[in-house]
Amino acid sequence: MEKTVSPAIIKRLPRYYRVITHLDGEGQTKVSSKVIAQLMDITASQVRQDFCSFGGYGQQGYGYDVKKLKAELENIMGLNKRHNMIIIGAGNIGRALAGYKGFGDGFKVTAVFDIAPEGIDLKDVQVLPMSGLKEYCAENKVDIAVIATPRSAAADVAQAVVDAGIKNIWNFAPTELDLPGDVVVENISMSESLYVLSYYMNRQEG
Amino acid sequence: MEKTVSPAIIKRLPRYYRVITHLDGEGQTKVSSKVIAQLMDITASQVRQDFCSFGGYGQQGYGYDVKKLKAELENIMGLNKRHNMIIIGAGNIGRALAGYKGFGDGFKVTAVFDIAPEGIDLKDVQVLPMSGLKEYCAENKVDIAVIATPRSAAADVAQAVVDAGIKNIWNFAPTELDLPGDVVVENISMSESLYVLSYYMNRQEG
Repeated sequence: MEKTVSPAIIKRLPRYYRVITHLDGEGQTKVSSKVIAQLMDITASQVRQDFCSFGGYGQQGYGYDVKKLKAELENIMGLNKRHNMIIIGAGNIGRALAGYKGFGDGFKVTAVFDIAPEGIDLKDVQVLPMSGLKEYCAENKVDIAVIATPRSAAADVAQAVVDAGIKNIWNFAPTELDLPGDVVVENISMSESLYVLSYYMNRQEG
Repeated sequence: MEKTVSPAIIKRLPRYYRVITHLDGEGQTKVSSKVIAQLMDITASQVRQDFCSFGGYGQQGYGYDVKKLKAELENIMGLNKRHNMIIIGAGNIGRALAGYKGFGDGFKVTAVFDIAPEGIDLKDVQVLPMSGLKEYCAENKVDIAVIATPRSAAADVAQAVVDAGIKNIWNFAPTELDLPGDVVVENISMSESLYVLSYYMNRQEG
């Protein structure tokens, strides 16, 4: 099943998961593409097409089994696996992420790295010096490095992370990272989200 | 020019802006749709189509004027206007946002509100009690309220914000808000971004 799945569909997966988890929490066992579509503000045909591209669970006319769909989505996104994360940068964003509880059981922050770790005390997570990154990664399983440094440091930090053997980067620094093709980078841009809000505000006022 | 612009295009606007700002910073004055497309990992035809939907600046074959394009994008997204923001919730995320410098000159955090503001000291920003929200909003121009509370408080806080007359909400709480149709809500979901990363990791390993 090595189909090519478009980035647009992949971006919808977490939203499907949120909707299905919500329905499961409400005790619903079956759901139609129409209901999912309404909750996500897309068309029912889009929902059916998306689910088809993953092998198609559910039969038209009968709806989808909520628990099965949830399990399939968890499987597709690897949410049922344990991922160890380290955070680079113990500034505001890094600390916020280290303390965040909303990612689910599959994602665990095991250490935070900073160029000046002295005096930084975080609840439940050790803060280590950047100089110890390579050794830490050699001795511990690290699946994801979160880059939470200023823009100016991000490129060097990303390189250090790749040199330490980490293949998956979640980037909060507002810059594009130029890395080898086998490294997976997901950028999260707060500015982009804010500017979308600003667009809608501006339309309203205009 | 009251065309309907699709949400997909609107989501691309900040990315166009980032690319164009980068080119402008490098001293480039003209850019083709092809170059923009490469930098954004979309097709040139998509770029031309998107720009067309906003009235179409640039002439095919001649490329786009970088400075003009930047100014147009700023105008479309209202980035050349001043927006006053308040943040509700002085937890990790709220503090990180209050100290964040990357949003540009157009966005200014004027106050942070919390149910227990005592002893919370933020650089450059006042921390006020939630009980003073309505009065503050009556006396000060507030354009955007940022919800940075736990999920459990988000719905009540959103209602309080709307009651205080604020029409634009940037929501960091991992929940959908059910608000009147004239309120603009932009959700930023860290989990969604992380799950996209997790999807790509999982594909790689599989």
